[in-house]
Amino acid sequence: MPRHKPGTNASHSPDLEPVAGNGLLSRRALLGRGAVIAGAMGTSASLTGAAAEPLKDDPWSLTMGNVTPALQTPSRFEKHVVRTLSNPNNELRNSHGRTPHHLINGTITPNSLHFSINHSGLPDIDPAKHKLVVHGKVKRPLTFDLETLSRYPLVTRMGFLECGGNSAPMFSVTPMQITAQAIHGLVSNAEWTGVPLSILLDEAGIDPTAKWLVAEGADSLALHRSVPVKKAYDDAIVAIYQNGERLMPGNGYPMRLFLPGYQGNMNVKFLRRLKVVDEPVMSYYEAKTYSQLQPDGKSWRFHFLQEVKSFITHPSFGHTMKGPGYYDISGVAYSGTGRIQRVMVSADGGQSWAEAALQAPVLPKAFTRFRMPWRWDGQPAVIMSRAWDEAGYEQPLRTDFVARRGQTKNPVTNPLIFPNQHYNSITSWGINAKGEIAHVYA
Amino acid sequence: MPRHKPGTNASHSPDLEPVAGNGLLSRRALLGRGAVIAGAMGTSASLTGAAAEPLKDDPWSLTMGNVTPALQTPSRFEKHVVRTLSNPNNELRNSHGRTPHHLINGTITPNSLHFSINHSGLPDIDPAKHKLVVHGKVKRPLTFDLETLSRYPLVTRMGFLECGGNSAPMFSVTPMQITAQAIHGLVSNAEWTGVPLSILLDEAGIDPTAKWLVAEGADSLALHRSVPVKKAYDDAIVAIYQNGERLMPGNGYPMRLFLPGYQGNMNVKFLRRLKVVDEPVMSYYEAKTYSQLQPDGKSWRFHFLQEVKSFITHPSFGHTMKGPGYYDISGVAYSGTGRIQRVMVSADGGQSWAEAALQAPVLPKAFTRFRMPWRWDGQPAVIMSRAWDEAGYEQPLRTDFVARRGQTKNPVTNPLIFPNQHYNSITSWGINAKGEIAHVYA
Repeated sequence: MPRHKPGTNASHSPDLEPVAGNGLLSRRALLGRGAVIAGAMGTSASLTGAAAEPLKDDPWSLTMGNVTPALQTPSRFEKHVVRTLSNPNNELRNSHGRTPHHLINGTITPNSLHFSINHSGLPDIDPAKHKLVVHGKVKRPLTFDLETLSRYPLVTRMGFLECGGNSAPMFSVTPMQITAQAIHGLVSNAEWTGVPLSILLDEAGIDPTAKWLVAEGADSLALHRSVPVKKAYDDAIVAIYQNGERLMPGNGYPMRLFLPGYQGNMNVKFLRRLKVVDEPVMSYYEAKTYSQLQPDGKSWRFHFLQEVKSFITHPSFGHTMKGPGYYDISGVAYSGTGRIQRVMVSADGGQSWAEAALQAPVLPKAFTRFRMPWRWDGQPAVIMSRAWDEAGYEQPLRTDFVARRGQTKNPVTNPLIFPNQHYNSITSWGINAKGEIAHVYA
Repeated sequence: MPRHKPGTNASHSPDLEPVAGNGLLSRRALLGRGAVIAGAMGTSASLTGAAAEPLKDDPWSLTMGNVTPALQTPSRFEKHVVRTLSNPNNELRNSHGRTPHHLINGTITPNSLHFSINHSGLPDIDPAKHKLVVHGKVKRPLTFDLETLSRYPLVTRMGFLECGGNSAPMFSVTPMQITAQAIHGLVSNAEWTGVPLSILLDEAGIDPTAKWLVAEGADSLALHRSVPVKKAYDDAIVAIYQNGERLMPGNGYPMRLFLPGYQGNMNVKFLRRLKVVDEPVMSYYEAKTYSQLQPDGKSWRFHFLQEVKSFITHPSFGHTMKGPGYYDISGVAYSGTGRIQRVMVSADGGQSWAEAALQAPVLPKAFTRFRMPWRWDGQPAVIMSRAWDEAGYEQPLRTDFVARRGQTKNPVTNPLIFPNQHYNSITSWGINAKGEIAHVYA
């Protein structure tokens, strides 16, 4: 068995092909070229002759393991991978649970970690008693229970769901030193299965002149929003499954509206009523929270679409770089208009960019994971990502964005300070020579 | 508000377009035609003028709800949606947890419900101490810990995982009266993220003449299997995330081999060693369990591929039909060779067939959900599905299959009776006039 001699790493260290400044690499250069990555890790930790020795048994390899449970849960070594909560004692106000993007990977958010905002706690709904009514300007008012609805034609689609207030900390005039979870944790991505809303409206015999629906939930707030009939016929569903199983209580059990690409609050949870009407109802959330004053004194009403966005999750604030060498920069990109077309990544604060690999399948209105090989030289660096969607929209640069939309001193300690909605500009992570990662504006 | 008069349902009952015998319908016929489904449900339960009345508040709509938790879990009304266990007291033998296919939908198996087979319990592995060694016929033996491996280029793919012994109850000479969970619960589908095995072997400098790997786990059995080097270069990964989060303990935490489309047992969990060798090691599992004697007295060695298969999950054994009318027949199809090309459904025991809708995206070596609209007339019916894959393989008819592969009196009470491996023929559900569903051979 050949032994690897100390000090010979350099001989395997590859002549990696750069595609942009400060160490961004061609993915092609990684393939079939020998020890390019271990070499690029710059330490001998991963190259050792000891591998040729017989393996030593760890304690868990010596005894019968734990019982196989009816429901699987993560290892006890993953207890830090949880949602962060804004209201853990269930005081009489709203509560946020944020997805830990810096600790997960791939594109799916597991149900345990899907973000959730609840304005009056989680209603404990008996699905055998819950009803959904479709009424208003229809020929035949309809009432559904979960069992009836489950017999209807179902469709399944991957889709992101994002609160209009996600990324609000980015409106801060100085970059807040918080994780991607704290900044961007109010967006998640799941596979939703439900009944096309168009089928329910056709069944009810919707008045062809009607333009709006009022969707109302069974929570104690009776949270309700106006939804254009056009969106109902485009791609809306009444969702009853999330990643295969019934909806989580915090995500609308037993049924919710799912409006692909539209702001989270409109995707009414615990759905109990769809009333077909002529005019929007001007509910609290649409008339106040989501009709936000802009710097020019005007407000955007019915600003439903979640615009194209991306952010790097690995590496990011909360991680520490383990010395110079190879890293796989990755993150998520998504757009309420459709598919992601391109994600560019920079490692030099935006001076040069290279196109990231997009993980197939690239699905409309869903997370796309992007990845970019990077050899960090141990010097200060700023990494950032920027996305484009198939409709031609681009993620704006921060200076352009805040010039249009404004910024504020502290959007977190006082969440009533505006602006705090629909932030979709670039996130930048600054890495210093010690490998510490900060949130920066570049 | 117009009220729907009792007894007028028939006027909405549509002239639905049949596409095959015994009520299979064209999906096109459902769209834009008024109350076709509620009408076809044949009861007035879903059409009621009461919908126009003010909604009554249920108890959960009157008070602050429950606390938003750090980790979401299903509603207390979903406590029956669990894996069924073969060894709940963790006796010194293997343990199976089966996926409840008849209670879930879509394509993803949530991590809590992903099937798992553990031959010596779940090792409680500290990921900071676990190591993976790549050695044998390589230039540079390599050792990885989870942190080092996580810095390598990652890929994400959807993929089914199936035990070679899944569906073994179907070898019974008489159809066993058990659920799709009990028959087919040893297959699941998830999004796996990991490092391409080809990169690790390139890094190690694999001997170009080597043909096999031995993969070994860190469980107390040191479960090990031989894997062709060709498969390693085709599409194998060392998986470290499952549906976004770290692997479940029962699915190989902190790292496992994932061989898309190959029998589950080869996808070695708790992976601690990959040794490059010239010949297969002829381990217990490959020499005995998975080299099964055929009726002609020969055994199939290295029968790795999980062949094209489909089964109906809704409606199926364990459900009860709620009277004549509209139902959405649906199930899953998958093949170890690639994409599903076509699924045909019959409602008359195989006399006539119609092509089911396949839910996009249809991904290779992953679950595809199929759906078929059906109007049940309340008379006895037998529903079944049959799949074809893009390589041209078809799911065999049961009579042809058992003629080739054999059958047995009771494959469940005595699992050592052969045959019990690689069953991929058709599953049929018989429905009687009371709406009861039985497992039948058609």
